[in-house]
Amino acid sequence: MPSRAPALNLKTINPAVLDVHYAVRGELALKADKYTQILADPKEKNSLPFDHVVTANIGNPQQRGLNQVPLTYWRQVISLLENPPLFEEHLDVIKQIYPEDVIERAKSLHQEIGSVGAYTHSKGVLAIRKRVAKFIEERDGFPADPESIYLTAGASAGVSSTLSIALQEGDGCMIPIPQYPLYTATLAYLNAKPIPYYLSEANDWSMDHETLLKAVEEAKKKNIPVKALVIINPGNPTGACLSHEAMEAVVRLCYEEGIVLMADEVYQTNIYDPSHRPFVSFKKVLKGMPKEIADTVELISFHSISKGVSGECGRRGGYFECVNISDEVMEQVYKMASVTLCPPVSGQVGVDLMVSPPKQGEPSYEKWKQETSLIHENLKERSYLMAEHFNKMPGVSCNPAEGAMYLFPKIQMPQKAIDEAKKRGKEADVMYALDLLDATGICAVAGSGFGQEPGTYHLRVTALCPETAEFVGRFEKFHREFMEKYK
Amino acid sequence: MPSRAPALNLKTINPAVLDVHYAVRGELALKADKYTQILADPKEKNSLPFDHVVTANIGNPQQRGLNQVPLTYWRQVISLLENPPLFEEHLDVIKQIYPEDVIERAKSLHQEIGSVGAYTHSKGVLAIRKRVAKFIEERDGFPADPESIYLTAGASAGVSSTLSIALQEGDGCMIPIPQYPLYTATLAYLNAKPIPYYLSEANDWSMDHETLLKAVEEAKKKNIPVKALVIINPGNPTGACLSHEAMEAVVRLCYEEGIVLMADEVYQTNIYDPSHRPFVSFKKVLKGMPKEIADTVELISFHSISKGVSGECGRRGGYFECVNISDEVMEQVYKMASVTLCPPVSGQVGVDLMVSPPKQGEPSYEKWKQETSLIHENLKERSYLMAEHFNKMPGVSCNPAEGAMYLFPKIQMPQKAIDEAKKRGKEADVMYALDLLDATGICAVAGSGFGQEPGTYHLRVTALCPETAEFVGRFEKFHREFMEKYK
Repeated sequence: MPSRAPALNLKTINPAVLDVHYAVRGELALKADKYTQILADPKEKNSLPFDHVVTANIGNPQQRGLNQVPLTYWRQVISLLENPPLFEEHLDVIKQIYPEDVIERAKSLHQEIGSVGAYTHSKGVLAIRKRVAKFIEERDGFPADPESIYLTAGASAGVSSTLSIALQEGDGCMIPIPQYPLYTATLAYLNAKPIPYYLSEANDWSMDHETLLKAVEEAKKKNIPVKALVIINPGNPTGACLSHEAMEAVVRLCYEEGIVLMADEVYQTNIYDPSHRPFVSFKKVLKGMPKEIADTVELISFHSISKGVSGECGRRGGYFECVNISDEVMEQVYKMASVTLCPPVSGQVGVDLMVSPPKQGEPSYEKWKQETSLIHENLKERSYLMAEHFNKMPGVSCNPAEGAMYLFPKIQMPQKAIDEAKKRGKEADVMYALDLLDATGICAVAGSGFGQEPGTYHLRVTALCPETAEFVGRFEKFHREFMEKYK
Repeated sequence: MPSRAPALNLKTINPAVLDVHYAVRGELALKADKYTQILADPKEKNSLPFDHVVTANIGNPQQRGLNQVPLTYWRQVISLLENPPLFEEHLDVIKQIYPEDVIERAKSLHQEIGSVGAYTHSKGVLAIRKRVAKFIEERDGFPADPESIYLTAGASAGVSSTLSIALQEGDGCMIPIPQYPLYTATLAYLNAKPIPYYLSEANDWSMDHETLLKAVEEAKKKNIPVKALVIINPGNPTGACLSHEAMEAVVRLCYEEGIVLMADEVYQTNIYDPSHRPFVSFKKVLKGMPKEIADTVELISFHSISKGVSGECGRRGGYFECVNISDEVMEQVYKMASVTLCPPVSGQVGVDLMVSPPKQGEPSYEKWKQETSLIHENLKERSYLMAEHFNKMPGVSCNPAEGAMYLFPKIQMPQKAIDEAKKRGKEADVMYALDLLDATGICAVAGSGFGQEPGTYHLRVTALCPETAEFVGRFEKFHREFMEKYK
């Protein structure tokens, strides 16, 4: 019998998959991986003009080489929960190394959860959801319902599942430009239409009612029903925090146009100067508006343990809260969650530790305070320093970040570079990023992966790399040479 | 301003979601939850005719009340990995309670992974994938490529993602009847067509080439392109293990008809009598067939840490292996995996512990052997005992299970019961299951949730409940009364 052609090829697989793009882990990241392997090989490591790869492309604080340590309290509690005999049979031994509040927390969680190896409720452990509700209430001053809260495998899983429920094929979903490309990737997969609204670089990456309305009108002209609006606050990649006024404009638009508001707030504790612009949640803004708006606009808010100062990306923990969504739709949300059984229990515990940290007076508090403050200060310092240096480089400008963990400098791309990139079949900022990697080992993502005003070029760089001065020095050298090459 | 109607209702959300059904956690499970809450309330607990709910609906071995303990070796290693200071600063203390091989394993994993809080490669940690490849090679005697292996958040996530890549809207996917309803749910969500092939209850729930071909021909008549075939071995809910001959017939069909073979093998270590019918993987069967078949049929095989004897459902760990899938499609698989960043690291570690358990001679081996053997023996004993009792009940017959952790007894449903159920707007086995819950607290899933030959009625019951005699006694009493009521 002769062989036959494969059943699966690019024409026979789900065509929506072909339209999905995710630059954060695309060509550049794969090349950086390859370089990391080369550098690990004693025979080949001298073949590159640098001795280590600097991963400034992914917001992954606990990655090797970035020297952000996990929070002690978290890891102590989780280690006990993983192996209850430690606080059952071996309590006397454990008391030698663990503070009392850690042991109590683990015992209490074990009482509530049982084994971390068992499936939980599909929404996540109720006791944890209750504490998430309490966290939300204390943050905002408005009630939260544990039954409208879903724990998820990171915020990404929640974004994916809620968009896949809310959107029909052909529905429009407003997205900020620039945005975190999970959104464009998900919309492509769902055959939904992204409706871009441009954030204004000249105005702290904000937007106003007019910008939003313009985007809605563009969609209407094309007969695209606008179903949802995604907003990321604090912003990724921009690092910008919205004013109360801007947030009200968004909510008002959603009210007027019958749009579901999806608020990605995973960076809510990465605010560098809370005295200047503290984090305000969209829930709080919504509930503070007139009653007919407050009780009508459908809102889904997302949070995660991957960012903030915990940086527990690999643990896959997060949640979403639904507000003003009908019971019949919430039943569908529950049903879809039940098919995937339950979110990772370790991630659920991470959410609990995030929303209920050690309290003042408890034995773990001082160390927790010290660790979280240090991480926060380091991030802030690096971010300010990098922005300062970017702004000094000729042909580079950079809005300082108010939060999140990224910088999004703009490169004045020389025409010759644009032309050369075209010859290579790439966007100019992609070519810049690839050349940057080849020359320095620094891996940053081109702005085109996030979206940008046409004719502008950016780079997204994380503020996570230690040895900022050395990093900046290498970057500056490359940039000078690049500008010289293409002047 | 007047309030407006919600943007989200059952007409405006993704219509594919409405077609998704997942009986395992549906109406019955929610009712069982409600009863659990009532029983926990001192004021209400006497209002029910039973004092505890027996969850025989979900394959969740570590659930409270089922008394299956986690494997000691696993939890010791994971607890150390969660908190490296335990084997760094506190090694002297830990040595008092942990054996040396546990400490070495944790150190080694920590060396390979780094922090369990960092994102890993989107396919999962390479070192773990290498050991998964080795496990597959040792099991089957054929090479496995770590780059074609993807670690996933349980097998469910892998099934979901591969089907969502492989299938276009309107594509047909063959599924066994009865099947685990993740498959029908996923196909509904993808707007793909389930093509049932009936397993024969009279023949150990097997199927032959003729049955499969008949299903393909039915699909062709309806102009449904048959893209994939799902097979679950050992079976869920049937517990049946396929003969080598039956497996070859499946592979041959996939070869002849250009069908992608999706082999759900999560119960491969739940085989009660390996001397009678040991587990043989589809990979092994495929690679043992003539070259043109062995090198052509596209196969995706799934495994999980949730079942077997580890029962680590809440940890969300598993993997899939792709065989004979083109590079261009594998690139798309990678791309989609990158959008969800990486599988939970704790689950990845679970996969490693599953494929590389303690070896004979190592300090942890004896205890591990003892624990796994006990769990295995208990499961087998309970399964045989329950099947025996089901077969003694008038109007009930039950194929003994050869593996997995379920029984799927058939109920000879009295016509009066069928009529009464119809009045209530339900399938007769759903009514039976609800009445069983109301009368005894036993929660089992009706066969209609899995699919069955029309005119037959089944129940899926897990073999996980301790106090089997008591369980069986309650069941028998209910059954007698039910049959009496509707005779």
